[in-house]
Amino acid sequence: MFDFWIDGQSGAARSGSLTLPHGTVETPVFMPVGTQATVRTLSPHDLKSIGAQIVLANTYHLHVRPGEDVIAQLGGLHKFMAWERPLLTDSGGFQVFSLEGFRKVDEDGVEFQSHVDGGRRKLTPEKAIEIQATLGSDIAMAFDHVIPGGADEATARDALERTLRWLARCKKRHASLMGTQTLWPIIQGGTLPALRTECLDRVMELGPWTGIAIGGLSVGEPKDKMYATIDVLESRLPPTLPRYLMGVGFPQDLVAAVERGIDLFDCVAPTRGGRNGSAYTPEGTVNIRNAAYRTDDRPLDESCDCETCTTYSRGYLRHLFAAGELLGLRLLSLHNVRYLIRLAAEMRGAIQRGGDAFGNWAEDWRRRYQHTGVA
Amino acid sequence: MFDFWIDGQSGAARSGSLTLPHGTVETPVFMPVGTQATVRTLSPHDLKSIGAQIVLANTYHLHVRPGEDVIAQLGGLHKFMAWERPLLTDSGGFQVFSLEGFRKVDEDGVEFQSHVDGGRRKLTPEKAIEIQATLGSDIAMAFDHVIPGGADEATARDALERTLRWLARCKKRHASLMGTQTLWPIIQGGTLPALRTECLDRVMELGPWTGIAIGGLSVGEPKDKMYATIDVLESRLPPTLPRYLMGVGFPQDLVAAVERGIDLFDCVAPTRGGRNGSAYTPEGTVNIRNAAYRTDDRPLDESCDCETCTTYSRGYLRHLFAAGELLGLRLLSLHNVRYLIRLAAEMRGAIQRGGDAFGNWAEDWRRRYQHTGVA
Repeated sequence: MFDFWIDGQSGAARSGSLTLPHGTVETPVFMPVGTQATVRTLSPHDLKSIGAQIVLANTYHLHVRPGEDVIAQLGGLHKFMAWERPLLTDSGGFQVFSLEGFRKVDEDGVEFQSHVDGGRRKLTPEKAIEIQATLGSDIAMAFDHVIPGGADEATARDALERTLRWLARCKKRHASLMGTQTLWPIIQGGTLPALRTECLDRVMELGPWTGIAIGGLSVGEPKDKMYATIDVLESRLPPTLPRYLMGVGFPQDLVAAVERGIDLFDCVAPTRGGRNGSAYTPEGTVNIRNAAYRTDDRPLDESCDCETCTTYSRGYLRHLFAAGELLGLRLLSLHNVRYLIRLAAEMRGAIQRGGDAFGNWAEDWRRRYQHTGVA
Repeated sequence: MFDFWIDGQSGAARSGSLTLPHGTVETPVFMPVGTQATVRTLSPHDLKSIGAQIVLANTYHLHVRPGEDVIAQLGGLHKFMAWERPLLTDSGGFQVFSLEGFRKVDEDGVEFQSHVDGGRRKLTPEKAIEIQATLGSDIAMAFDHVIPGGADEATARDALERTLRWLARCKKRHASLMGTQTLWPIIQGGTLPALRTECLDRVMELGPWTGIAIGGLSVGEPKDKMYATIDVLESRLPPTLPRYLMGVGFPQDLVAAVERGIDLFDCVAPTRGGRNGSAYTPEGTVNIRNAAYRTDDRPLDESCDCETCTTYSRGYLRHLFAAGELLGLRLLSLHNVRYLIRLAAEMRGAIQRGGDAFGNWAEDWRRRYQHTGVA
């Protein structure tokens, strides 16, 4: 029920095939984020129409609403959200450490206040694993101690040690459940190279693992720090394991990370940006609310095959946003996710041509793509 | 490009086939409302998947935003909203007389304040016809003087006379444009039988027409007054013309009106109700927000073939509403519109069985359907 097979390489970039209980995922792959058991504005039918292979759902959000017990009674997360393809759940660590409100951290876990009903709840490594097992995702993530982007070394060291102790507890609880779900650890350590490599080494000592995630990036640090951190890890990451860069999803970051050997991504940017009128195109990000598009009869992205681009003019999409029509939010979300899925597929094709093919492709892609920083 | 053929009858109920420039519509038919060139939350693909044959769009709304000139530059309303099947546009009369804000009525027309930019604008019979011709709908509606539900006879008489004078001007302007669009008049007269029949007779004198609409009902009057008004008109309406009851769309009203010889309907209720969590079922209206549905694994409506009912549990739909997810609004809107389309198709089938078939069907339907008044 679990397998990862590398079927192409070009420089550090790799393409592969990841077999999970609910199907096989071709990498590099972008995972749309279904925070509350739905990728905002999109149906499973929409997601399949744009080639989504795997969706991420949030343990924290589903735990506080509707509760994993409700989802279990309704047949588990796949059936609940009518998504029969693979699912990855995060552990809730990122949410309990980043959401506003009361939070009390000790060695046992994190006590927090639900943003839904204000009630006090507690997540521990064991509890995070149990919830994810109840949800029934294909890949569960370890519960980690997440620190703010600019934390000092002492704080980072302390969080790292706790993350490693919690990882051992996650692993133990996960093993006792003996399900088909697999558990992936998360490498933390901020942008401090020594901490990152130490974390990786000590995580590997706790293995074996079927995959490995890099957390705590794209949280406000400069882009070059993010890329440098991936570079540091790249040479030490076991080549046979799938590598998941958490929370990263701007087009230029996907390209830079695949260039550095990353296989999986997730990010709310395409759907959040889409709801704000921001759309990815081969020439960069455009904001469809712009008056310049009022009578523009061109599609959003002439090279795109999604329903939005094959059906509507920019003028109509602009009208939907100007008029506050919900269809606009959906059509831009659909396109943006499709854009990242196509980008990943295009990178996969370039990687499989081998040699310098990916590097050449990436150079050409960057020449065309001008990031406007809007998304 | 215009034809109406009655192909079934049972009591006063009729089934027919209405041929328009963009296709043929089987009646009785429910028209979903695409106020701003989109049926709220639904795509044209969704609408086709649930068998929508004809959509209504609002002249007032499209005139103030984005403007008929923008729509014309983008290829006309059909192309703009990517709906290649028939379209009916209302004239804007109902909106300029019912929306809040400044309004000045004289013999020439209605000056009003745009709800979008606050600018003063004016609709006249000629202007309403010109806008609709520019939009390019299959059926245009006459610009009428609409009065509040409880208006006294003098007010109703005055509005009636003006509506008739305006109808003559609409007809003249429409004839001069010589397009493929057809123009339908609107019978007003409140719930006063004498005014209604007089209005009908005098409208017919201004003909010939290809169809006829009944306006000013379902605006707060008691149900029996509404049904009585349709009854009064039914015996005098020319049997060969399609009859459109404007703004009516609750399930029980559709059944009662078809029983009284009505062929076309439109209403925002299924989409507005859907966005509020209210759903039609064969047993009446349910509100999906109800905690009773928390772990309910049944579909919304077991007899329904729409994507919502064939894919999701009530428990999941309730979760989407509880979590404020936009997908919920869309899934309930989709189901509610499908419900009315299926209801119309079911009535059509009963009518075509002839004899007492429709009356028996309606009696049986009413026994099952308990209107809860939520929608």
